[in-house]
Amino acid sequence: MPDAALSRKSARARVYWWLERPDRAAVGPWILEIALVTLITLNVAAVILETVDPIYARWRQAFNVFEALSLSVFVAEYAARLWVSREDPEVRSRFSWAITPLALIDLLAILPALLYLFVPIDLRILRTFRMLRLLKLTRYSPALGMLLAVFEEEAGAFFAGFFILLLMLIFAASGAWLAEHKVQPEAFGSIPAAMWWAVATLTTVGYGDVTPITVAGKIFGALITIVGIGMAALPAGIIATGLNDQLHRRRASLEREFRKALEDGAICDAEETEIEALRKKLGLSRRAAHHIRERVEAEMPASQERCRHCGKLLAAEAQ
Amino acid sequence: MPDAALSRKSARARVYWWLERPDRAAVGPWILEIALVTLITLNVAAVILETVDPIYARWRQAFNVFEALSLSVFVAEYAARLWVSREDPEVRSRFSWAITPLALIDLLAILPALLYLFVPIDLRILRTFRMLRLLKLTRYSPALGMLLAVFEEEAGAFFAGFFILLLMLIFAASGAWLAEHKVQPEAFGSIPAAMWWAVATLTTVGYGDVTPITVAGKIFGALITIVGIGMAALPAGIIATGLNDQLHRRRASLEREFRKALEDGAICDAEETEIEALRKKLGLSRRAAHHIRERVEAEMPASQERCRHCGKLLAAEAQ
Amino acid sequence: MPDAALSRKSARARVYWWLERPDRAAVGPWILEIALVTLITLNVAAVILETVDPIYARWRQAFNVFEALSLSVFVAEYAARLWVSREDPEVRSRFSWAITPLALIDLLAILPALLYLFVPIDLRILRTFRMLRLLKLTRYSPALGMLLAVFEEEAGAFFAGFFILLLMLIFAASGAWLAEHKVQPEAFGSIPAAMWWAVATLTTVGYGDVTPITVAGKIFGALITIVGIGMAALPAGIIATGLNDQLHRRRASLEREFRKALEDGAICDAEETEIEALRKKLGLSRRAAHHIRERVEAEMPASQERCRHCGKLLAAEAQ
Amino acid sequence: MPDAALSRKSARARVYWWLERPDRAAVGPWILEIALVTLITLNVAAVILETVDPIYARWRQAFNVFEALSLSVFVAEYAARLWVSREDPEVRSRFSWAITPLALIDLLAILPALLYLFVPIDLRILRTFRMLRLLKLTRYSPALGMLLAVFEEEAGAFFAGFFILLLMLIFAASGAWLAEHKVQPEAFGSIPAAMWWAVATLTTVGYGDVTPITVAGKIFGALITIVGIGMAALPAGIIATGLNDQLHRRRASLEREFRKALEDGAICDAEETEIEALRKKLGLSRRAAHHIRERVEAEMPASQERCRHCGKLLAAEAQ
Repeated sequence: MPDAALSRKSARARVYWWLERPDRAAVGPWILEIALVTLITLNVAAVILETVDPIYARWRQAFNVFEALSLSVFVAEYAARLWVSREDPEVRSRFSWAITPLALIDLLAILPALLYLFVPIDLRILRTFRMLRLLKLTRYSPALGMLLAVFEEEAGAFFAGFFILLLMLIFAASGAWLAEHKVQPEAFGSIPAAMWWAVATLTTVGYGDVTPITVAGKIFGALITIVGIGMAALPAGIIATGLNDQLHRRRASLEREFRKALEDGAICDAEETEIEALRKKLGLSRRAAHHIRERVEAEMPASQERCRHCGKLLAAEAQ
Repeated sequence: MPDAALSRKSARARVYWWLERPDRAAVGPWILEIALVTLITLNVAAVILETVDPIYARWRQAFNVFEALSLSVFVAEYAARLWVSREDPEVRSRFSWAITPLALIDLLAILPALLYLFVPIDLRILRTFRMLRLLKLTRYSPALGMLLAVFEEEAGAFFAGFFILLLMLIFAASGAWLAEHKVQPEAFGSIPAAMWWAVATLTTVGYGDVTPITVAGKIFGALITIVGIGMAALPAGIIATGLNDQLHRRRASLEREFRKALEDGAICDAEETEIEALRKKLGLSRRAAHHIRERVEAEMPASQERCRHCGKLLAAEAQ
Repeated sequence: MPDAALSRKSARARVYWWLERPDRAAVGPWILEIALVTLITLNVAAVILETVDPIYARWRQAFNVFEALSLSVFVAEYAARLWVSREDPEVRSRFSWAITPLALIDLLAILPALLYLFVPIDLRILRTFRMLRLLKLTRYSPALGMLLAVFEEEAGAFFAGFFILLLMLIFAASGAWLAEHKVQPEAFGSIPAAMWWAVATLTTVGYGDVTPITVAGKIFGALITIVGIGMAALPAGIIATGLNDQLHRRRASLEREFRKALEDGAICDAEETEIEALRKKLGLSRRAAHHIRERVEAEMPASQERCRHCGKLLAAEAQ
Repeated sequence: MPDAALSRKSARARVYWWLERPDRAAVGPWILEIALVTLITLNVAAVILETVDPIYARWRQAFNVFEALSLSVFVAEYAARLWVSREDPEVRSRFSWAITPLALIDLLAILPALLYLFVPIDLRILRTFRMLRLLKLTRYSPALGMLLAVFEEEAGAFFAGFFILLLMLIFAASGAWLAEHKVQPEAFGSIPAAMWWAVATLTTVGYGDVTPITVAGKIFGALITIVGIGMAALPAGIIATGLNDQLHRRRASLEREFRKALEDGAICDAEETEIEALRKKLGLSRRAAHHIRERVEAEMPASQERCRHCGKLLAAEAQ
């Protein structure tokens, strides 16, 4: 959108243009985005460094000033996004925008600090919640979208996987409690206590701070561990399957677009732009898109071949 | 099924309607199902909490009453399910129902406690068997069905994977015993003793309570560990492959259904309901079904082929 | 093969029929196979139990008798298999049989014990080599064949994966040595010594017997560990890909067979038997075969449809 | 290339023929390649052994001589490769060759040692950089190329996976710090300190040198660990997906080539050579190529379709 066109727009449209980057080629909004990403990263770094006592003692004042500044920026950002949300044709009302995941994350990033202004509770715990500002970064990662889509799509399988894991955990803890609670009353005194060992074992973390020492406990533990590697493999299998599926679906979408564009023999500039936009939205790599196009083109000419005997076109659309 | 129709049915059909939920839209049976799931969860929580000595000492009486109550409910549920099993057209006899996996789980959930009424043996161990009630939850998880189908289908590959793991375990334990049994006679004094280290190492749990200390033992241990990560990867690979396969098969089934329904150009309401039922049975997500439908519809217009003899269009919408 | 037909055969053919089970339906050879599997399992159990000092002290004589017996059986088995190998039409000479993997395993199972008869060396180490008899079990597991084919096929990728792992190991050990060799001269005194920590870390075993304690060492260790989870994932990814591929190839083979058999409209008994044999050879489950057949049949009728206008068959083979 | 043809070539072309092996069948360059691989391996072994104090004390002089020799060879190799790079028709200028990854690796392998000749800094750290010579081996592994292509292609997904892992790490460290910093001020005194535990836990390494001891810390730790197995599975899923994809793409390329070659009914010798070259470039196994060819051939006869206008066969073998 050229500046001339922009100047005729309302202030709200202008802010929308800066904040939501509908025009991905504009330089100004891109710099603003980088500034926001940097501020979020600095905030997280500040939360981490504040917990280091000597650093906090030395720079306490600076941390407080930085927090006040950051909070102002994030509050202003939230207010601005809420205000301009109506510019997005897909958003029906400000409230419907406010309950989108990205908007809720923005709210979570400012709420704890705002609460503190009115209800002064234990500062230390509250400050840690500023960690949630980290989640604001999700807005800027396209590939993250695909991973989240996998988790969403495969939620059922994930739930089942965790259900099986829970079953295994309870069985493992019960068995270890039976075998060990007399010899190690501290570590295996009850099933909830034995759960700590069961979690460390079935997830293959294996701290080794608590291990079975009776023969029965060791045999049971070994069996549980061997079966457990299958459990730990469940999420890997589910994610691999889901990711594979996502990619195939997205590629199929792009392929359909290519096929449609190539039906008239060549891809015109308008089609090229449209396909490129779809590619970015789907989060596919340029190389993958190139490969799909090559394949579609390789298949296409076959349908414009002529009969070797009468010279007429074989494909129906050439009639 | 409307209440009017139900009232004309026999008592057995009525209980069947409540317990087995043939009509997934009815509210009453749905609430009963939730109540049963809650009772099972509370039972497992009780078994876990009973092992915490102070809690058991304080609430012993309450635990006993709750157990008596739960047992009555589960016995009644088992009896009722056995009674109404003949209502299911796919069940030929009560015995054939009683040996289905779900029925056996229901039996296992009450058998140990019933046994105790007649043969009073050590209470502590017996009570842990009430943990098996957890398995009753499998009836209510559709996604679990797909995972179990994967395990069933890939049983051969799983068995082979565990066979290779067993081979590796025995070799690892033999080698470690050879290298370490003179220096650490307690931990590596025999192959069965060295197996504890081998299991912890090959499954990458790595407690660290027992580690090789000789140079030969460390070199052998390092080699075994490096090869072992391939072993631990076997179940992941098998599950990923199996899950992928299951999903493709189920999607192919749904696709066939869509294709059949779309042959006459549109999906009528009866077909819609039928496909939705199949989708639920197959455990596919609504989004996946939508994607399949979109793909089938995109391919369909291309089938406006003409008869090779009379030249007329084959598809119905061309008439 | 009926007994009558067998009796007319030579002794060699008869032994071949017993040992190699060309007729999978015969009961006698099947019992012999089970007996051999049992003997192998007992042998491995004996090797394991002999290392437990009290058991060996008590049953020494029995172990020796059992070993002498087992050795005789395995020597006889090897000699017999070598003798009858010419019966197999695919084996050109006895030597070409003797260098097949299965024959070499059979030889390895008897060689160490035979060697001992002539060159009496340290008994303890030699006895452990009897563990190799475990490998004899591979002959009897069909699913193992598919896994081994995956390892063979993906050998290049596996080698590359291990090469990357080796690179990572050397870099990890070098870095840890640089950071820690002054503070922990015993555990990190040289790169080979630091390798023990590097292996335990990169394979995610993490014994914890040796860990970095300097700040530089911990930061470096943390970075290496995070990158390392990608390394540990390499074999899983390779196996999943390879297994997936194997299955697809095998299914495609079976599908081609079904398609060929169904070309004339129905599968006759001879074709059924042939396909069943192929299915067993490929190690595919009955359910998978059923699914493939269903799919092929669902596609087939479409090519025998008649034109909706002139009533003639559309498929070319129906002309 | 025969020696007669070579002798007429310039010295530069001759060196190119020896170093870059354009003719893969020539024996001389193949021996030179093996010699270089051996030298690289010996160099890495030397770096490792130098860190073992007794060995270094004893063989110091030999190590220095070997290093001087190796450095000369590698410098000569780099100079020679730079000189002959113009022989490669795909290289436009010496500079464009010098910034290829392989050339940069070659430079990195000599630069630290050359620097030391002019700026004498701490020898110990510098010597470790000779480890980088290990990377020179990548030139000789074809399968490594496929793995690197997967990492390159899936860079977006990998970045997203590591971003999620970073989020999890920061949350885990924050939570553990909150729960444990009062009881274990040394191990969990600040978020950066708690990060060491978080890394060991989320990557399932689990050293066990630092573990939570409060009840809140253990519950939080268990929850984080259970969620963490999904995190550790992300790279596996991404790699499996990417590898699968790479293989399919490469197989599709080879299949297209086979299809093109088979269009005239048979594969002539020239086509055979061309396909074999492509197969090697793609890093596909001979077995995989054989399978693709079989499939293409099985599909080909089906294409004996007739022209829709004149009714004659379209395929050449039907003439």
